[in-house]
Amino acid sequence: MTQPRRARKAAPGPSADAAARVPMREALAEAAFQLFLERGFERTTVDDIVARAGVGRRSFFRYFPSKEDAVFPDHERCLAEMTAFLDGHADGDPLERVCEAARIVLRMYAANPEFSVQRYGLTREVPGLRTYELSVVRRYERTLAGYLRGRYGDAPDASLRAEVIAAAVVAAHNNGLRGWLRSGGQGDAEGAVEHAFALVREVWSGRGGPRAVVSAAGDAGEGGEVVVMVAARSTPLWRVVQRLETALADG
Amino acid sequence: MTQPRRARKAAPGPSADAAARVPMREALAEAAFQLFLERGFERTTVDDIVARAGVGRRSFFRYFPSKEDAVFPDHERCLAEMTAFLDGHADGDPLERVCEAARIVLRMYAANPEFSVQRYGLTREVPGLRTYELSVVRRYERTLAGYLRGRYGDAPDASLRAEVIAAAVVAAHNNGLRGWLRSGGQGDAEGAVEHAFALVREVWSGRGGPRAVVSAAGDAGEGGEVVVMVAARSTPLWRVVQRLETALADG
Repeated sequence: MTQPRRARKAAPGPSADAAARVPMREALAEAAFQLFLERGFERTTVDDIVARAGVGRRSFFRYFPSKEDAVFPDHERCLAEMTAFLDGHADGDPLERVCEAARIVLRMYAANPEFSVQRYGLTREVPGLRTYELSVVRRYERTLAGYLRGRYGDAPDASLRAEVIAAAVVAAHNNGLRGWLRSGGQGDAEGAVEHAFALVREVWSGRGGPRAVVSAAGDAGEGGEVVVMVAARSTPLWRVVQRLETALADG
Repeated sequence: MTQPRRARKAAPGPSADAAARVPMREALAEAAFQLFLERGFERTTVDDIVARAGVGRRSFFRYFPSKEDAVFPDHERCLAEMTAFLDGHADGDPLERVCEAARIVLRMYAANPEFSVQRYGLTREVPGLRTYELSVVRRYERTLAGYLRGRYGDAPDASLRAEVIAAAVVAAHNNGLRGWLRSGGQGDAEGAVEHAFALVREVWSGRGGPRAVVSAAGDAGEGGEVVVMVAARSTPLWRVVQRLETALADG
């Protein structure tokens, strides 16, 4: 199969008849992708694409600003979906929310393994597509960072913390996604990304990863001081207590 | 002052007479930058640049693959310097090493505040330059991640951990750098970036930040199990010990 299947969902757009236009947009994206695989991205012209799709040349540019956009036809919709999700969830743990938002991107890839894997191969070969992809990834990252910044409000270093955490979440997501793409779309994409998110969660929310037992006593509350105690599991309890007493006295 | 000053250092390149060519390369970069500021990036042609620099058209492409490259004439040298630094420092704390490597980039910007600030303004206005900059940032990030991956060796999730930490370091660096650029190059660029690195260090190396007291009892060693205990500073010690006992029994 060389045709990308895509979710039957209207692309977001300013036009009132956007939904009606979806079939032509899909037809163009499918014709473009077939041709890129057959002839290569650089050697395929917009004229080739509209000829294959059986539409006029201007139709292409009505849907896609460039050839690159036709390779990633779902990112605009996905960005809009992510933004809508975050706009509607200004509650709960902020880190969990951005992980949930990132899963929207993952599901877009995982919904169509063959297309995603073929596109991954194409993107590796064409520098212009890699650059395009970097820009898209950056837009997701900015969306997540913007959300976190809003959630952190006036907290010290809100902006710094938002940007660093968004970058970590995106890097974790991409590590899991890339592993799945390299495996040819075999295996569990969601599991790989969850595993990667667990690492980010482990360090950023202070909760336990696979090698740590975490226990919380009392509630420090917003801005309260906390004591973090790290000990080998084999350490005798008396020694842990001794260290804790020293830490509390010195702190 | 509208002319970029740059360190008197030979650009790395395959040519044996690279050092001798530096003056022409600098002259081209300076002419290009002046013109971009005067006329705008898009409206400046390579013919304009070579006319201003007083050299032939082919000279431009001998030094710069594209107009975009002439806006960022030092990144290749900086990437080479970062790679050389990391190649020579396969010791010490890996996170500290990548922070040191990222400081090489910062120093390149901070060495020439006026040029850096003007270029920042230009880059905000020209989408092609923003995309170019994203590609450069990605190369730095890959260099740092590659180093960390090598240092982590066969540890579980070495690749994931390397990519997430490299992304966090780059995001922290860019947050500090961007703040300094937005201030018009006033203030302490290195201080801003050190502050940002401190956040990454706080979570990734398990050392204490301003709000946490961290105490380590015993040595878990490579791959050993650890107990992490988080408690409000106001929690009574007996309650902390009770929770620790429960955690050790359940874990």
